[in-house]
Amino acid sequence: MRTRITSEGELIERYLAPLARPLPGTLGLRDDAARLSPPPGYDLVISTDAVAEGVHFFADDDAAEIAWKALAVNVSDVIAKGAEPWCYQMALSFPEAPEHAWMAAFAAGLADAQSAFGITLSGGDTDRRSGPLSVTITAIGTVPTGRSITRSGAQAGDRLFVTGDLGASALGLRLRRDASLRTAWALTEADAASLLARYLRPQPPIAFVPVVRAFATASMDISDGLAQDLGKLCRESGVGARVEAERVPLSAAARRALDHDSPLIGAVLGGGDDYEVLLTIAPDTAAQFVEASRDVGVTVTDIGQINATRRVQIADSLGRELQLEQSGWEHFR
Amino acid sequence: MRTRITSEGELIERYLAPLARPLPGTLGLRDDAARLSPPPGYDLVISTDAVAEGVHFFADDDAAEIAWKALAVNVSDVIAKGAEPWCYQMALSFPEAPEHAWMAAFAAGLADAQSAFGITLSGGDTDRRSGPLSVTITAIGTVPTGRSITRSGAQAGDRLFVTGDLGASALGLRLRRDASLRTAWALTEADAASLLARYLRPQPPIAFVPVVRAFATASMDISDGLAQDLGKLCRESGVGARVEAERVPLSAAARRALDHDSPLIGAVLGGGDDYEVLLTIAPDTAAQFVEASRDVGVTVTDIGQINATRRVQIADSLGRELQLEQSGWEHFR
Repeated sequence: MRTRITSEGELIERYLAPLARPLPGTLGLRDDAARLSPPPGYDLVISTDAVAEGVHFFADDDAAEIAWKALAVNVSDVIAKGAEPWCYQMALSFPEAPEHAWMAAFAAGLADAQSAFGITLSGGDTDRRSGPLSVTITAIGTVPTGRSITRSGAQAGDRLFVTGDLGASALGLRLRRDASLRTAWALTEADAASLLARYLRPQPPIAFVPVVRAFATASMDISDGLAQDLGKLCRESGVGARVEAERVPLSAAARRALDHDSPLIGAVLGGGDDYEVLLTIAPDTAAQFVEASRDVGVTVTDIGQINATRRVQIADSLGRELQLEQSGWEHFR
Repeated sequence: MRTRITSEGELIERYLAPLARPLPGTLGLRDDAARLSPPPGYDLVISTDAVAEGVHFFADDDAAEIAWKALAVNVSDVIAKGAEPWCYQMALSFPEAPEHAWMAAFAAGLADAQSAFGITLSGGDTDRRSGPLSVTITAIGTVPTGRSITRSGAQAGDRLFVTGDLGASALGLRLRRDASLRTAWALTEADAASLLARYLRPQPPIAFVPVVRAFATASMDISDGLAQDLGKLCRESGVGARVEAERVPLSAAARRALDHDSPLIGAVLGGGDDYEVLLTIAPDTAAQFVEASRDVGVTVTDIGQINATRRVQIADSLGRELQLEQSGWEHFR
C-alpha cells in the first residue's frame, strides 16, 4: 500500500467513484460531467473554498483529517445560508502521485464527512503539478426558492448569536506551531488534544439548517474570525454591532488557556477557522429561536446586539472597547 | 498599475464582481455563496477543470489568454454534453499578490470568454500560497431534463465525427517549446502564429450545442487527444471504432507541418488540448446532421465508424494500423 497510484483512471475508479455512487447522475465519474436534476421549487446555494498544505493544513496531517476539513469548510458556508448540502465538485492537485494508503485514508475522511453532512461527490478533476497539495471544493446546497439567508438582512435592535464556541481552532493552530504553549497555558494533555482537533476537524452544525432558515435575519459562517466576519455582515446590512467579549462562548480548554494568558482573547475573536454560524435574530423571536436551537441540539449564545452605528465594537467586562491586534485572516497581507 | 493588489476584498470588488453582475443571485460576490434559481424543467451539467502554470500554460503567457483558456476548457465539457453554459465558480491561487495590470488583463480575458460562451461568474475563492498560479473552474450548464449526451450511447454502425480540426494545439505546444521546429516544419510566420494561438485560445464550438443534443448518440470533448478520448468513449459504450487517419481534419498550418514531418501524426492524434467535439451519429441521420452542423456554422468531418470489436484502430491510407507512441495525456505517468 506504500506504492503510488499510477493513473488518474485508477485513482478515480478505486477511490473517488464509490463516493459518487449515491447520485446516479454522476455516471460513476466516468463521463466528462455530472448530470443532476435539481429539485423543483428550490434554489441552489453555491460556494467554493480551497484548502492547501502550508496554508490550511500541515504536510504531515492525517489524510482523513485533510479531507474532512476540505469538505467541512465548504459545507459550513452552505449551512450558514440555511441550505441543505446536496453535492460537491472536487479538484485535487498533487505534487506527486499519491500512495494508495494515503488516498484510501483521504477517501475514508471524505466518506465520513459526506455521511455527517448529507452531501455526495458529483465530480471533479485531479492533476499533478509542483507546489503544495491542494483540495478545491465547490459545494452546492438546496433551499426552498427565495428562502436562503444572506449577510445583508440585519437590523438595529437584532440580537447577535453564535453557535458552539469560538477560538479553539485558532488556539489549536498556535499550539501546533509551538508545543511549549501547552505548559505556558497550563493545559492538560486532553485540553491540548481538544484544541488541536478543533483546528483539523471543524464541525459546522448541520442540524441547525432549518433553524437558520426559520429565524435568521442575516447569517454567515465564521471562517476569518468573529471580528472580521461580523464587520462584513454589518457592512452588507448597513448596521453596526456591539459584542460583549465576556459572553463569547469558549470551550473548557480555551477558557483555561485564557485564564493563563488573557491577551489570547485577540486570537479567539480574530483568529478564524471556527466554522460556527454567526447570525442575527429579531428580538421578539429570540426566545423561540433559542428553544428551536435546543430542540435540534445546537448550543447558541447571545453575544451582543446590532445597532445603527455602522461600527463593530467589542467591549470587555468593564465596558471598555477592545483593540484587536489580529483582526482576521487576510491572504494578500 | 505595476502595484500589487493588497487585499482579497479589493481584488473581488474591482476585478471579479463586475463579471458576476448579470446574475443577481451572486449578490455582487459580497456574500458567502451565490443563490441561483435553476430554470424549471432543466438538468444541470457540472464539470470541473483546473489549469496551472507549467502544466496548462506558461508563466509568461498573457493573463487574458490564461483566463480564456481556463474558462474555455471547462465550457468545452458542457458543450460536448449538449448543455448551454450557465454559470461558473472560480478558485484562484496566486504565488504572490497579483499586480493590478495583470489582474485587469485576466478579468478582461474572462469577460471575453463569458461573452463568447454565454456564461457568468457566480462565485469562487482566492488565496495565496507557494506553488504555481492556478485557476480551478467548475462550470454549470443547463439542458432540458434527461436530454444531455453521455459517452455511453455509441452503437456499432454509428459514424464517427469530429468538429473543427485536430492537432494544431499539440503542434503549437511543440513549437512553443522548441522554436527551431518552425524551420524544420517549413512553416511561414503566419502558420507558426496560428498553431501557437490554438494552444492558448481553444475555441469550443458553442453554436454546436443544439446539434449535439439533436443528433449525437454519444459525445465528449477531445482534451486528452483523439486516440485516448475515443478509447474512453468506446469503453463506456461497449464498442470499438476504426478511424481513417487520412480523414482526420487538419488546419492548413498543421497540414504543412505534417508534410515535412509525417510522424507528427502521432502528436495530432494523441497530443490533446483540442477542445473539439467527438461524437457518434446513427448512420441514417448522418446526412441531416451534416446539414444541421453547416446551418450553425460548425465544420464536421466523418473520420470513421463505430464497430463491435471493442478496440480502437487508427488506419493509414493503405489500411495499416498506426501504432501511436503518444496516446494521450496522463498526469500520473
